[in-house]
Amino acid sequence: MAEQNPVKFGILGCAEIARKVSRAIRLSPNSTLYAVGSRSVEKAAKFAKDNGFPDSAKVYGGYEAVLDDPDVDAVYIPLPTSMHVKWAVLAAQKKKHVLLEKPVALNVKELDVILEACESNGVLFMDGTMWMHHPRTAKMKEFLNDPQRFGQLKTVQTVFTFAADPEFLENDVRVKPELDALGVLGDAGWYNVRACLWAFDYELPKKVTALPGPVFNKSGVLVSCGASLYWEDGKVATFHCSFLSTLTTDVTAVGTKGYLRLHDFVIPDEEDKASFFTCENPGFAELQRGVVADRNEHVVATDLPQEVKMVMEFSRLVGIIKAEGGKPEKKWPTLSRKTQLVLDAVKTSIEKGFESVELIS
Amino acid sequence: MAEQNPVKFGILGCAEIARKVSRAIRLSPNSTLYAVGSRSVEKAAKFAKDNGFPDSAKVYGGYEAVLDDPDVDAVYIPLPTSMHVKWAVLAAQKKKHVLLEKPVALNVKELDVILEACESNGVLFMDGTMWMHHPRTAKMKEFLNDPQRFGQLKTVQTVFTFAADPEFLENDVRVKPELDALGVLGDAGWYNVRACLWAFDYELPKKVTALPGPVFNKSGVLVSCGASLYWEDGKVATFHCSFLSTLTTDVTAVGTKGYLRLHDFVIPDEEDKASFFTCENPGFAELQRGVVADRNEHVVATDLPQEVKMVMEFSRLVGIIKAEGGKPEKKWPTLSRKTQLVLDAVKTSIEKGFESVELIS
Repeated sequence: MAEQNPVKFGILGCAEIARKVSRAIRLSPNSTLYAVGSRSVEKAAKFAKDNGFPDSAKVYGGYEAVLDDPDVDAVYIPLPTSMHVKWAVLAAQKKKHVLLEKPVALNVKELDVILEACESNGVLFMDGTMWMHHPRTAKMKEFLNDPQRFGQLKTVQTVFTFAADPEFLENDVRVKPELDALGVLGDAGWYNVRACLWAFDYELPKKVTALPGPVFNKSGVLVSCGASLYWEDGKVATFHCSFLSTLTTDVTAVGTKGYLRLHDFVIPDEEDKASFFTCENPGFAELQRGVVADRNEHVVATDLPQEVKMVMEFSRLVGIIKAEGGKPEKKWPTLSRKTQLVLDAVKTSIEKGFESVELIS
Repeated sequence: MAEQNPVKFGILGCAEIARKVSRAIRLSPNSTLYAVGSRSVEKAAKFAKDNGFPDSAKVYGGYEAVLDDPDVDAVYIPLPTSMHVKWAVLAAQKKKHVLLEKPVALNVKELDVILEACESNGVLFMDGTMWMHHPRTAKMKEFLNDPQRFGQLKTVQTVFTFAADPEFLENDVRVKPELDALGVLGDAGWYNVRACLWAFDYELPKKVTALPGPVFNKSGVLVSCGASLYWEDGKVATFHCSFLSTLTTDVTAVGTKGYLRLHDFVIPDEEDKASFFTCENPGFAELQRGVVADRNEHVVATDLPQEVKMVMEFSRLVGIIKAEGGKPEKKWPTLSRKTQLVLDAVKTSIEKGFESVELIS
């Protein structure tokens, strides 16, 4: 296959997270920062200058101008969630591949409009869940799939919390009812739900039940909540997400023969390597005087940060479509949709006073 | 205070756990193995011989004979849970101090009969939750109580599972409806519930809701289950206990400023020391390119195993009663009762199809 031209990215908006993804595009060998649009052209120009865009980059005083630029191959959309359906659909209609920040939509009905637009226009859809692309994630999956070391997965517990200040809790985009009505559930909870689905090989749970004790801010947006996810045969996961506790990003997965845990699953402590911990076939010592266990820390090095790996994978798939035609990869939209379905069920369960919600895919 | 005579223990029955506690009594400087009773005197004699009882130890072909021995100060009762109310009450009536294996009773109504008997007879009551007595537990509590390093506790997640073989799942005492009807909830779940209460300073939760997906054996006894415990202000804990997964004994407690976790809370990996892990005031690095956190492993040495510490504390309190008279310490029966109340609520919630159960102390 001939060397592919780098995928030319346009960015819609100058959100904080767009700084990180701009760097990732810049560091990605098969991608290039090509354009940025903001409501004001000055803001776009400043963003381009501050974030390493080449001098040749296009700077637009609006989002639509980015989509109208015929040289833009793909867009990264870090806009508030309530704007996703409008701009992702428009991007797809203009034949731009879509890298969409999470949460991808306010509900699965909106997401289906986006996914239908991407599919009918033959463009790739991927959400911005960076940790999926770290080489650690594949290594952990090898462990979970090992019938001797891990056995059959039985339960997952995961927490993603970080302590927001009072200003954030009232005014951040992520807690504004008109911008991100899912609040912490869409922000931190997205990762917890994805981790549970990932561990259970993306099998949707049969039932989702919110935990008691969700907390809302003054505008009625969730700032702390949790849920249990139930599969058959007693397989169950629980998660807790919150803007009210200190930073934790833990996953523990327990199987019939071993278990896995990690403590920085969303963003690894360090950019060039990440750890996970396993325990294989542990047992009590004689008289239960201790535990005999094969406990190990596994360090997985990475040549590039996980967000660069994400952009590279996105651009690799775009490159295949550009070079060979054919339909976009279905894997990533399917994972986004399953994650959204579970988020919707958690929200419904909270609204119905913690009733159990059956999931229909 | 004059040197106290060692507390003379009688043991009712030859359960496997009695071997461990016999060793603990033997190693405890203020306690002595004085008598053991079994349904057959041969079995009692063999147990005494195998477990380091002194040659002078009394060996009885029945439990009542132990209680009738005027030199026995205290009894350790490792009998199946369904027999606790009969034998603990009788022991109290015979003025023997009571160290009772957990779960202490089949329900709080039975426990109250036991506690009333102990109180009205002026004898000490303590349950056999060994990890409470490890010096690590006090060290961890110091961390949880630190407003700068940990802040306010928000959530606890805990798992205690171990993989039982098919023979255990049908025939072990702990899964026999007529012997230990609480199954895994009374056995492993007892520790999870105690850990949650411990972390929340023994404040009872307002509501308890079982998680979906409990598993029962052929006799209808629980072998896997879980629950969420809810306090006010969004404070919540979840636990999962099971005989169907590999050995895990994890606690994670998340506060507003720091968090604590450990992976061998029930029985430390090693007898002479135990670790816990803390993280203080973590935050994301610039561009969320990593996590800046003060993560530490704390190793707490102990001169004697936690079960010896438990026996020593029990005998210390018995010694005070013997030397000074006065009423027995209320702390330990109070903790047992709160733990039992939560277990009962989990069981009720399961029976009512995972309805939320309000707790009234």
